[in-house]
Amino acid sequence: MKIAIAQINTKVGDIQGNSIKIKKIIEKAAKLDIELTVFPELSLTGYPPKDLLNNKDFVTANLSELEKIAHFAGKTACIIGHIDFNPSLKGKALFNSAALIHKGKIVAKRHKSLLPDHDIFDESKYFEPFGKNIPLEFKKQKISITICDDILQDGPSPRKQIYKNNPISNLTKTRPDIIINISASSYCEGKTIKRNKLLTKIAKKTGSHLIYCNLVGANDELIFDGNSMVFDPKGKTIAQAAAFKEELLILDLKNPDDFKIPEQLSKEEECIQALTLGIKDFFHKQGFKKAVLGMSGGIDSALVGALAVRALGKENVSAVMMPSKYTSKESTNDAKELCKNLGIESQIIPINSIHKAYSENIFKEKKENATDTAEQNIQARIRGNILMALANKNNWLVLATGNKSESAVGYCTLYGDTTGAIAPIGDILKTDVYKIAKHLNKDSVVIPQAIINKAPSAELKPNQKDQDDLPPYGTLDKIITAYIEEDISPQNIVDSGISDKKTVFSIIKKIDANEFKRKQFPLSFKVSKKSLGCCRNMPLVKDMSFVFKHETTTHSSTTSADKQALPTLKTAKSK
Amino acid sequence: MKIAIAQINTKVGDIQGNSIKIKKIIEKAAKLDIELTVFPELSLTGYPPKDLLNNKDFVTANLSELEKIAHFAGKTACIIGHIDFNPSLKGKALFNSAALIHKGKIVAKRHKSLLPDHDIFDESKYFEPFGKNIPLEFKKQKISITICDDILQDGPSPRKQIYKNNPISNLTKTRPDIIINISASSYCEGKTIKRNKLLTKIAKKTGSHLIYCNLVGANDELIFDGNSMVFDPKGKTIAQAAAFKEELLILDLKNPDDFKIPEQLSKEEECIQALTLGIKDFFHKQGFKKAVLGMSGGIDSALVGALAVRALGKENVSAVMMPSKYTSKESTNDAKELCKNLGIESQIIPINSIHKAYSENIFKEKKENATDTAEQNIQARIRGNILMALANKNNWLVLATGNKSESAVGYCTLYGDTTGAIAPIGDILKTDVYKIAKHLNKDSVVIPQAIINKAPSAELKPNQKDQDDLPPYGTLDKIITAYIEEDISPQNIVDSGISDKKTVFSIIKKIDANEFKRKQFPLSFKVSKKSLGCCRNMPLVKDMSFVFKHETTTHSSTTSADKQALPTLKTAKSK
Repeated sequence: MKIAIAQINTKVGDIQGNSIKIKKIIEKAAKLDIELTVFPELSLTGYPPKDLLNNKDFVTANLSELEKIAHFAGKTACIIGHIDFNPSLKGKALFNSAALIHKGKIVAKRHKSLLPDHDIFDESKYFEPFGKNIPLEFKKQKISITICDDILQDGPSPRKQIYKNNPISNLTKTRPDIIINISASSYCEGKTIKRNKLLTKIAKKTGSHLIYCNLVGANDELIFDGNSMVFDPKGKTIAQAAAFKEELLILDLKNPDDFKIPEQLSKEEECIQALTLGIKDFFHKQGFKKAVLGMSGGIDSALVGALAVRALGKENVSAVMMPSKYTSKESTNDAKELCKNLGIESQIIPINSIHKAYSENIFKEKKENATDTAEQNIQARIRGNILMALANKNNWLVLATGNKSESAVGYCTLYGDTTGAIAPIGDILKTDVYKIAKHLNKDSVVIPQAIINKAPSAELKPNQKDQDDLPPYGTLDKIITAYIEEDISPQNIVDSGISDKKTVFSIIKKIDANEFKRKQFPLSFKVSKKSLGCCRNMPLVKDMSFVFKHETTTHSSTTSADKQALPTLKTAKSK
Repeated sequence: MKIAIAQINTKVGDIQGNSIKIKKIIEKAAKLDIELTVFPELSLTGYPPKDLLNNKDFVTANLSELEKIAHFAGKTACIIGHIDFNPSLKGKALFNSAALIHKGKIVAKRHKSLLPDHDIFDESKYFEPFGKNIPLEFKKQKISITICDDILQDGPSPRKQIYKNNPISNLTKTRPDIIINISASSYCEGKTIKRNKLLTKIAKKTGSHLIYCNLVGANDELIFDGNSMVFDPKGKTIAQAAAFKEELLILDLKNPDDFKIPEQLSKEEECIQALTLGIKDFFHKQGFKKAVLGMSGGIDSALVGALAVRALGKENVSAVMMPSKYTSKESTNDAKELCKNLGIESQIIPINSIHKAYSENIFKEKKENATDTAEQNIQARIRGNILMALANKNNWLVLATGNKSESAVGYCTLYGDTTGAIAPIGDILKTDVYKIAKHLNKDSVVIPQAIINKAPSAELKPNQKDQDDLPPYGTLDKIITAYIEEDISPQNIVDSGISDKKTVFSIIKKIDANEFKRKQFPLSFKVSKKSLGCCRNMPLVKDMSFVFKHETTTHSSTTSADKQALPTLKTAKSK
């Protein structure tokens, strides 16, 4: 069977636009005599639609458009991800569905069984799970159409089995000729390898051809990496689409062309491509063209500038140097050199006179050259205001340059350096910022070596260095990763030897105390296992002292005199 | 049976603090020979714990504390809401539970069956639902312990039945002597009346005494109103605790004292009490004492100032007047008079020289008295910065003064007037701001009449009035309510006669386009059916043109040639 995998980039809510894209591919497929074209999960509506799903008109419009596409498709067969109404009045109102279109009609529908609601997902808030997924016959082939988690259960979980039913074991019994999985699986570090292994295993286990069609493109915090793949019944990859771009992958299942698995991108290269796509889609999907950012001469703004140039083009990135009396000449020179390397326009707007005007007006008791937090924050906020003023004047968007290490411990000024429409490296730890910057320089110098070499500084008071207030970034980043990504308790982090108790405990207190700042941060792109944005839903007002009182024994409360038989309580396996 | 309902105010995560509070009440109950003391849902952990539930140490600590309380309680019996581990390795790892403690032991546990995940809730993300809830025998009474939604299914839903099982119908069959419901049901307008009706009906239907113990206090966006109640088997209210404050409500079920149902508070009074509690808990639960706010002479800052005084005391509220060249003398005078009425300290920090410093430095082509958006926003941001500088210097928190009407259409400056730790009236429409202000003045003038009478203005350019850019607030608020709270399509709003097509469509475009601003707003308290914060999870990057193409017919896609029998598709009943 000659199939096409349409790895497309959709926009959330844009049913008309997505439909136009789908129809163009159907036209092309018809010309190429493709027998079946597969589109990603919720390809008609975009993913994730979030609360648009509460709008009945949205669901109605997507169903109406699906019928139009069926009519348009004519002889061409295709599978399209869409939303359906749940006909029962019990349970959730919707299904996350796939429609098989053939000969101008919707000939079959399948609904997602396993709805993720861990981590970044909230599908069970909107969708009703569908219990049984029976294979269908198409062109004399037994085909199982599945949707993402139905077979791709890659959510992080300490549970042995997060779902109660398991479609994979059904597939192992029914052994279809072809398993099709339409998916919207977002990128994070290591995900592509993990996904590949999982799918290989399923193809082998079921003895089926496995067609995996993933979404590509960025929607809000999530970046979908594409990397659609086809496996033969022995688990061999016989085709793979590109990472981070659209592709129409065509192959004949029976007589596939020779295929060499492309080399896995390095961690840094993958991250660069992910963030570049993130910035590009955030701007272009909203109709913005140009970005402005403050260029301090430091590594963070240098990296954000370089990524923005890749995403938007050098003619669409504008840099502003905003020196104060604490800004070193080196910083301004480094920033200038960087802008030259990047080929972007830049301007210098000194902030001294504005800063002076604030200090004179706000504080009754004048202290010459006061350098407390209030005074430091004023400088950062002046810079944020200048960028916003330029953005307002020119219809640009501001890029915030903060990294994950700073956000985690609140080493940043709310309404100051956190100002922006997006924070492109908000999910990148400082140590990774350096690695990525070095990778960008691998062929020719983009980011001046001086920027990479210098000690990080906010330059908000004389001779300030980040390391006056924070442990070395190597240590800090390990603490952040252990606490945020790996859920390790403070005491266990100390015991693991990352750092001493005083340092670890003080950093973790900072992480917990700065939720209020992060609440008002701009969006950043999830590229780690756990970002500080969409991956965490922490209370703002809370007491976290329990984390410092780690008890090693778990308490199983047994009950007596109880008519309701309770199973013996065991604690879940720890991660 | 002599029972006590402990309507307590808990803090999320503060297992130790909540436990101390619980133990104090147990001590008191023991002295008063109370036979059973009932605490609210998740009383040990606070509600909603959100992602703290992913922390195993948190769950372990709460179970350990529960055992300590059982030991402490001695002869006193009580019911305590807590988290339990799900002993099965399938499904979610936790239960939302209630423990019956008696004679120093945990004698029974019950787990929540119906886990809300609509609207503000996400319980099914963390908890496994428990299928059957069997009554237990306690002191020769048949008692059913239920948790919140198990009987209190008050979520807004177009579905006939949002849950698949129905504990109420079981209770109607088993007819226990006493139904106990421990709850964390948050306040919104009209909720208390709705809840009362629902519970009355259940008591009648089951012929049981019904004890409803609700949480009180604010946690992040949610305000729990208390209003715990007891009904006799005929559905008559025989006791009711206070609204918006802690209370230990004691009564003998067999011989209740004569009870007169307290008069339902007016909408305005209820809202004032809710917001006051919200501000108070946000500050005090985090250890903050003093608030600062910008006082413009307008109605919004006047109301926020008055609420802050109620919540924190007049000695803990500091006002700042920040006039520009566009600020009228009346505004400053009105603001001064208000501060005098409130008895709060105030200072004047003019922003002209700071504004001048910005304009001179930022814009190359100087335009004398430019009044475009960029220039207007600079003024608002200077004010935000001044407030933050004062807050940083003095360890105060800034109160943002924006209302819901402004937030909805983005008639506000990000990092300017949206600056703050909380926006106390962020869920109050402008027309309600007036109503509440007038209510505050009912006994004596707090907010000067001139502030109530004047036409609203941001005073960011000469002779500016809100109504130059927006329809009259009466109209605007109706459009916002119809679109946000009632999910009515733009065309249907036009058809309902609220306003003309051009106005309605342009307002709705503004609502949809300003999600990016709201993403970075401070927290505000949910008091309406649907707030713009926690009640909405809308994509930022999206296309909303489908809302303007409302189609009246729904399309049921029938399938053919399909081995999987699908029920005929019907659309869910529209709201």
